[in-house]
Amino acid sequence: MTLALDAAAQDLLFREAHTANTFTDEPVTDEQMQAVYDLIKLAPTAFNQSPLRVVLVRSAEARERLVPLMAEGNQAKTAAAPLVAILAADNEFHEELPALLPHFPQAKELFFSERPVREQSAAMNGALQAAYFILGIRAAGLAAGPMTGFDFAAVQKEFLDDDHTPLMIVNIGKPGADAFYPRSPRLSYEQAVTTV
Amino acid sequence: MTLALDAAAQDLLFREAHTANTFTDEPVTDEQMQAVYDLIKLAPTAFNQSPLRVVLVRSAEARERLVPLMAEGNQAKTAAAPLVAILAADNEFHEELPALLPHFPQAKELFFSERPVREQSAAMNGALQAAYFILGIRAAGLAAGPMTGFDFAAVQKEFLDDDHTPLMIVNIGKPGADAFYPRSPRLSYEQAVTTV
Repeated sequence: MTLALDAAAQDLLFREAHTANTFTDEPVTDEQMQAVYDLIKLAPTAFNQSPLRVVLVRSAEARERLVPLMAEGNQAKTAAAPLVAILAADNEFHEELPALLPHFPQAKELFFSERPVREQSAAMNGALQAAYFILGIRAAGLAAGPMTGFDFAAVQKEFLDDDHTPLMIVNIGKPGADAFYPRSPRLSYEQAVTTV
Repeated sequence: MTLALDAAAQDLLFREAHTANTFTDEPVTDEQMQAVYDLIKLAPTAFNQSPLRVVLVRSAEARERLVPLMAEGNQAKTAAAPLVAILAADNEFHEELPALLPHFPQAKELFFSERPVREQSAAMNGALQAAYFILGIRAAGLAAGPMTGFDFAAVQKEFLDDDHTPLMIVNIGKPGADAFYPRSPRLSYEQAVTTV
């Protein structure tokens, strides 16, 4: 009643969605990934900087390079997931800013001429987009398995370059048998929210 | 067709939602904010660390303290918004970890005994939750106006403490007259996504 979002959508995105640890072998298509991206690209970032870059690990060869770089507890599920996405932040996002922010092209020079500033901004706004991406995967009727347990430096070296910092790796697919752990507790409203 | 999320929900959260720059004077209730929080608290963070903390700026006195700390271009809308939320990351989130991760309480000591590690993790996972929060505001049928144009150190000193780092400030309400700028371009799928 209090929310405008319908109950089915609340369930799909939040209430019945869980991080999946097993998957069926049903493929995840490029069409699905494009639909996810075309939805979540619309959600906001600061200065519309849109630093998220995604590497879809599709080939068996690439999967074989990735799995050993995962923490041991993440290797089996990353080997088995129908699709794996490496989410990264582009620290040179400012090169696209004049196109992304046509009413304020000066932002590129005014705010983002220094690399450390860009790295911090790309990490923050890339994380916002990673969250949109996780919900977008759920919006496609798929389960996401986001992970930060991997060798960040090795993944960057193997799949990215000096300008792209890994944010997380996400297993994607239809949940398989015993895919979900029981939901852990959350902080109450009173614990997380104060009013002044 | 490709997405499981119904079109109305896609519109509400992404396609027709925009960052609002003006608001009506219709109040935003505590019941609405609790419904938003109780939805978005379910979305994932690493180790379920849930570092997001929210300060709702409700009183006129608090609003008067906040507005001068905003960048000049953000002051008028922050003064006028029905509700303003300061989103922050709790760098001491590990104190709650044994309760949040009851099946793996050792995570507190194993992974988060060092403050710099916690700060980085809280910033990353707090940003994920900030993104969930923005979409949660939209799920309530409200418009969000997220801003990073403010004096971070001054907001931390005035409204938080040394353990809580500001992430962003969000104006919340029903969009008013001329609330939206035209949507800026987004990167295409081909620009943002590669396959290996």
